[in-house]
Amino acid sequence: MIPALPAIMVEPAVRAALLEDLGRAGDLTTDAIVPASVRTECALVARQAGVVAGLDFATTAFRLIDPAIETLVERPDGSRLAHGDLIAVIRGPARGVLTAERTALNFLCHLSGVASATRGIVDAIAGTNAQVVCTRKTMPGLRAAQKYAVRVGGGSNHRFGLDDAVLIKDNHVAIAGGVRAAVERARAGVGHLVKIELEVDTLVQLQEAMALGVDAVLLDNMGLETLRQAVEIVGGRAITEASGRIRPDTAPAIAATGVDLLSVGWLTHSVTVLDIGLDHRD
Amino acid sequence: MIPALPAIMVEPAVRAALLEDLGRAGDLTTDAIVPASVRTECALVARQAGVVAGLDFATTAFRLIDPAIETLVERPDGSRLAHGDLIAVIRGPARGVLTAERTALNFLCHLSGVASATRGIVDAIAGTNAQVVCTRKTMPGLRAAQKYAVRVGGGSNHRFGLDDAVLIKDNHVAIAGGVRAAVERARAGVGHLVKIELEVDTLVQLQEAMALGVDAVLLDNMGLETLRQAVEIVGGRAITEASGRIRPDTAPAIAATGVDLLSVGWLTHSVTVLDIGLDHRD
Amino acid sequence: MIPALPAIMVEPAVRAALLEDLGRAGDLTTDAIVPASVRTECALVARQAGVVAGLDFATTAFRLIDPAIETLVERPDGSRLAHGDLIAVIRGPARGVLTAERTALNFLCHLSGVASATRGIVDAIAGTNAQVVCTRKTMPGLRAAQKYAVRVGGGSNHRFGLDDAVLIKDNHVAIAGGVRAAVERARAGVGHLVKIELEVDTLVQLQEAMALGVDAVLLDNMGLETLRQAVEIVGGRAITEASGRIRPDTAPAIAATGVDLLSVGWLTHSVTVLDIGLDHRD
Amino acid sequence: MIPALPAIMVEPAVRAALLEDLGRAGDLTTDAIVPASVRTECALVARQAGVVAGLDFATTAFRLIDPAIETLVERPDGSRLAHGDLIAVIRGPARGVLTAERTALNFLCHLSGVASATRGIVDAIAGTNAQVVCTRKTMPGLRAAQKYAVRVGGGSNHRFGLDDAVLIKDNHVAIAGGVRAAVERARAGVGHLVKIELEVDTLVQLQEAMALGVDAVLLDNMGLETLRQAVEIVGGRAITEASGRIRPDTAPAIAATGVDLLSVGWLTHSVTVLDIGLDHRD
Amino acid sequence: MIPALPAIMVEPAVRAALLEDLGRAGDLTTDAIVPASVRTECALVARQAGVVAGLDFATTAFRLIDPAIETLVERPDGSRLAHGDLIAVIRGPARGVLTAERTALNFLCHLSGVASATRGIVDAIAGTNAQVVCTRKTMPGLRAAQKYAVRVGGGSNHRFGLDDAVLIKDNHVAIAGGVRAAVERARAGVGHLVKIELEVDTLVQLQEAMALGVDAVLLDNMGLETLRQAVEIVGGRAITEASGRIRPDTAPAIAATGVDLLSVGWLTHSVTVLDIGLDHRD
Amino acid sequence: MIPALPAIMVEPAVRAALLEDLGRAGDLTTDAIVPASVRTECALVARQAGVVAGLDFATTAFRLIDPAIETLVERPDGSRLAHGDLIAVIRGPARGVLTAERTALNFLCHLSGVASATRGIVDAIAGTNAQVVCTRKTMPGLRAAQKYAVRVGGGSNHRFGLDDAVLIKDNHVAIAGGVRAAVERARAGVGHLVKIELEVDTLVQLQEAMALGVDAVLLDNMGLETLRQAVEIVGGRAITEASGRIRPDTAPAIAATGVDLLSVGWLTHSVTVLDIGLDHRD
Repeated sequence: MIPALPAIMVEPAVRAALLEDLGRAGDLTTDAIVPASVRTECALVARQAGVVAGLDFATTAFRLIDPAIETLVERPDGSRLAHGDLIAVIRGPARGVLTAERTALNFLCHLSGVASATRGIVDAIAGTNAQVVCTRKTMPGLRAAQKYAVRVGGGSNHRFGLDDAVLIKDNHVAIAGGVRAAVERARAGVGHLVKIELEVDTLVQLQEAMALGVDAVLLDNMGLETLRQAVEIVGGRAITEASGRIRPDTAPAIAATGVDLLSVGWLTHSVTVLDIGLDHRD
Repeated sequence: MIPALPAIMVEPAVRAALLEDLGRAGDLTTDAIVPASVRTECALVARQAGVVAGLDFATTAFRLIDPAIETLVERPDGSRLAHGDLIAVIRGPARGVLTAERTALNFLCHLSGVASATRGIVDAIAGTNAQVVCTRKTMPGLRAAQKYAVRVGGGSNHRFGLDDAVLIKDNHVAIAGGVRAAVERARAGVGHLVKIELEVDTLVQLQEAMALGVDAVLLDNMGLETLRQAVEIVGGRAITEASGRIRPDTAPAIAATGVDLLSVGWLTHSVTVLDIGLDHRD
Repeated sequence: MIPALPAIMVEPAVRAALLEDLGRAGDLTTDAIVPASVRTECALVARQAGVVAGLDFATTAFRLIDPAIETLVERPDGSRLAHGDLIAVIRGPARGVLTAERTALNFLCHLSGVASATRGIVDAIAGTNAQVVCTRKTMPGLRAAQKYAVRVGGGSNHRFGLDDAVLIKDNHVAIAGGVRAAVERARAGVGHLVKIELEVDTLVQLQEAMALGVDAVLLDNMGLETLRQAVEIVGGRAITEASGRIRPDTAPAIAATGVDLLSVGWLTHSVTVLDIGLDHRD
Repeated sequence: MIPALPAIMVEPAVRAALLEDLGRAGDLTTDAIVPASVRTECALVARQAGVVAGLDFATTAFRLIDPAIETLVERPDGSRLAHGDLIAVIRGPARGVLTAERTALNFLCHLSGVASATRGIVDAIAGTNAQVVCTRKTMPGLRAAQKYAVRVGGGSNHRFGLDDAVLIKDNHVAIAGGVRAAVERARAGVGHLVKIELEVDTLVQLQEAMALGVDAVLLDNMGLETLRQAVEIVGGRAITEASGRIRPDTAPAIAATGVDLLSVGWLTHSVTVLDIGLDHRD
Repeated sequence: MIPALPAIMVEPAVRAALLEDLGRAGDLTTDAIVPASVRTECALVARQAGVVAGLDFATTAFRLIDPAIETLVERPDGSRLAHGDLIAVIRGPARGVLTAERTALNFLCHLSGVASATRGIVDAIAGTNAQVVCTRKTMPGLRAAQKYAVRVGGGSNHRFGLDDAVLIKDNHVAIAGGVRAAVERARAGVGHLVKIELEVDTLVQLQEAMALGVDAVLLDNMGLETLRQAVEIVGGRAITEASGRIRPDTAPAIAATGVDLLSVGWLTHSVTVLDIGLDHRD
Repeated sequence: MIPALPAIMVEPAVRAALLEDLGRAGDLTTDAIVPASVRTECALVARQAGVVAGLDFATTAFRLIDPAIETLVERPDGSRLAHGDLIAVIRGPARGVLTAERTALNFLCHLSGVASATRGIVDAIAGTNAQVVCTRKTMPGLRAAQKYAVRVGGGSNHRFGLDDAVLIKDNHVAIAGGVRAAVERARAGVGHLVKIELEVDTLVQLQEAMALGVDAVLLDNMGLETLRQAVEIVGGRAITEASGRIRPDTAPAIAATGVDLLSVGWLTHSVTVLDIGLDHRD
């Protein structure tokens, strides 16, 4: 099971989202209509198949609005959901439940969408040695949460930011005046625990990269045959990462070339929510 | 032209996103490879057709990283883009440009995605009287930005949060013990500038709602024929809003029923980025 | 009873106020004089008649300083107080009680002042159909709290900010080049749940406004007879709001003209505190 | 002239107040009606006599909304205003001016109200040696700004918070078991630059206090004759501070008793705004 | 015993430090290796003699990471530690303990270092009347915590900031055009509870200062004989503070001159941590 | 030259430190004594030899207090300073310069202290292949700044936090039930750009580690002869890092063993400030 994010990483995002929704006057509708004494019991239910992620965010939303709301998780983050599956029970004062509902679902449906999409590709390439990784193409402010959801879906994380690994792209190479200069400057400039990855566009560049001893190579938008040759050239001396137009239907062939990683940007920038609803039991 | 968001609403989101990316050590790669004296000129270029939105967010990212970076916008927010169109020119110290690039693009590609999707539906229903509106199903923390992008794309905004209009849903009705009680409590509880909208599931409920004088009705998941009858029942006495499975291909028929508003959640929760790139001119 | 503000809207304001008072060294006096083991029991007592508001803010101040402090509310927000009435009992470690006392009272006395002043006008116009509303003339940073106190005092809230309704003032009309242009631009520019109110200075303007179908009219600084005619002209087709020099003694006559709303700025910008003390029982 | 507050103390309060007013959608009215190209020139004008304070807060509001807005101050903080006096000229894009107007005025009218009320008492006691001081009974979150306005009005500041002086009140004395114990514990517990003030209710207590060598005595709610005797007993060995029901009409007699300070809570908790308007010149 | 800092002053610093350490992905090592079900019991143990300070910061770190972690303090802040002494027991889920460990120790070892260094000088001058005080030469962001640690070590606090006492330095005197002008301006400009201290370089200046009635004099970098004469000149009419190169070995002679205060900057800017470890008991 | 930290990483820390010093009333002394019109020119001057670091923090302090203050850097970060060297000239309104002085110096003296200490060890081991690295034993809230100063001093950075590399310590090994299990779990749990380092206590453990293919080994508190054998065992297959009691006098012998890295905690937790003063030129 994927370790949960510490609460102090979860709470600030949920708090901000709740305040964004409450505005300056709170939930006008619920406050006017629902007496304080009414209690409710609801169920978070999957309305389509997928993988659930983000339950800590959702339950935190309810708890921050009213600590008297209890949440009982039936299917924790990472569970595979069938249509109709019960995910969690929410029980407590109806006002708070209704007020927090949308914020809780906004987190839960999006993060489950990320996890489900990730799982879709991970499953598609089962049997190969390749792993699915996400990128820095994330929704502003939600990177840690989205990368957590990728892990929940069976993927791995690439860089979390500009500061935790070197990734030399074509612009860096151009400015440095060549691959060798770029790699040497990078090696001289960063600490010993920082890995160096180089984006290569051609097999010639790849051979030059191998001679320089980089830790990983990013093989961007290469055809299948070129990828296969690239893997052969690398020969296990570095991690090979393929990127560009990787979808569930194209992933198996790409993974079959022997690359170590499939890098998939849309998992975090263009994903569809997983439909999860909050059913109020009367 | 859609009025820009004030800078004090734009800057905090961009600042947070930059810090999320910089982490504790900044851009290891660029700092190590690119000398401080190198300057660059780049172009933000559309890699697919669509509508651009979020240029203030993008240019703010560059400016916050280095005030010496100049940005010249060629096609402002709301412009229709063809593949290859030049959107803006970015000029200045290469380090800052490379460091801010991903954050700038994360905002720009997402918000342009929202605007383009909105425009897609707005165009599809051109000739009808219906308007496209978004919902509270937004990405946590990005609501104001996303709703701005919807406006840029030709849509309108529904509620910004729980506090700026009353929307009575089925759960409220159930707890109140009926539509009449719910509407009366709402009217007694909120200020005179707050409109009241009621979600109705059946035409019988709709007739009850009309008798109560609500300002708007949300017609959720009704078939085309039912929508037509609903519009007739309302007869201009309230705003009619249709929701449920509204996509570019289904929108025209729904709009043709005569409803005033098409409410589209996926514009803000499941949208695909518009592909915009930063081309470094050497 | 007026619904309470959610705790996540109350706590940040109280936390900031406590830190403002604690500075960098905390309560020098109490820390030096009062041993940690001393406990106390105090009573929040009304020193004049009025309406209490803000108990959540006050009790939060005590709880944030020391979670061991218990607070028992005898007369909740909205209660009418006579001189000497017991409002709440505060019990716990004396250090925390003394340290939080001033911050708790600053919130409680001010918000009760707002509620009491509101109640004064609401009572003065009892028997008419008019409602008392507050404005955006609030103390910077305290708007949500003050507007809550107005509700507690029996008033209603006008706009919470620039973004939750349209209020077209004379400057807008002047720039637009007339009432018609202003109203039409507003209608085209905002969403369907946003009401449009227009400030009118003369009955001629009012007739123009009625022809345009605005939702509400602000009748600023009109004499009683003019107000009466204005109400007649409107004839129930829009909400009528009177503003300008509304005090408890002038309010009844204004309300008797038939206007729907009395708008009172001084409730939130020039109000006198309600005198509430914390009596330490020895 | 009173030194201005550093901008880094002014900006955060103004920024928060602007965001409180802008909400999630900004100024709906102005954005819809006023074209971006329209410029305006307005005048901040006194609508009643008083003392102006808070211009930095007001001009910061305009500047934060749009840096293109110019502000020319004609009568700086501390100036005495007659009805109709021009305080400052505001010039620039009309949108920004209209959007920032209410926030700017909320600060300016309140802080000028504080300064004017202070000046009223200061003037009333002119010719005596007494000074007017404010208290910790401030509006939550606005303490630094209010205390600045008191200085602008000719007053002095008492403690800014719990941490910058010792003020021993009756409850501290009761818990310590007497005045001597309280003073001794305080002296032992705080640094050498911290002054110690003691609240005394009777002349007997005062004599005890004098024997202990406190730096100041707070003479709470004493009659004029008692105050005179108290001043005589102290004989210049400590600062004497009178508090309780000090208004412009009662202040002169109290000051004439020879006390050093008049402590006035309502200057910061129950003050009336000074009426200042923004006149749009067409 | 030194009163604890209120939790609302401790928590924000600890929260920020934890987030600084967790980054965007949390504790990679522990999350990957330690199952959620493993529990641990550890001991905070002194690895050298000294005085402990900062236990609230340390225990808050554990609690914020996981509320299920229990902390039992055996030797509270201010306790003298021998090598090997047990300070506290930490018990709970191993993941949280390992994740919070470094942040907890960073606070505890530094603040105990400050307290221990303070105690070293305080002990060295035992028997004299002098007190040890710290300065504003603190680690940015940690002033309140460091000054608390000085108190725990037996020292007193000098100014907490620029706003809680007047300290006139040579540059102020130069700009004012002399000691008299500087002191008079200061007295006119600040409130009655603010003490005035003057830095003097020579005995001539000191005599001038005494004639002006300042509350304290800072005797900077004077030799022992000069200090003795200074104390004699002051004759108890003001507080005397010596500063400059005060170390445990030089302190006794300086204190023996009769000065009231020894001001020691390095206690907060150049102190060595106290070595405290977290021993995991298997 | 070491790349500067982006301004958006520098400003928040400086802003917080200034507000910590300004408190609620600002610089009482300077405001009272120094007229607004007085200008000054000062010099930041080295009072001892060392390496300067943190000039951006210092100049930002002056600029944030008053944008009219100019700063001219003569010896940028990384420069070796002799006693008396001019580092920078500060020119502008005297009030702002005096108000910002202490905050500017607190950053500059501490960070220069870190850089100078680092340089001391780096110079001591010149001629070997070893590098100096810092640890996570940093001052809470100042990690990014301190690690920057280490780089300025010629050192490298180890992990910035728990999330940017795996460091398996003895407790992790104990819980995992052995080195093999710990390493395997780590490898399975983290992304491909994350390096794995293992702390080893004995040469037997080291041999086991080498068989597992870790990226780096931390050789804690080993004697010189053991270190030499460890380096031989590793034989270049992993990075070797020595830690424990590394001071300028012990460093050369340790570096001579052939280890790649010397890990030095006290550089960031127990360093002495570099004495830099601000000389006011009259």
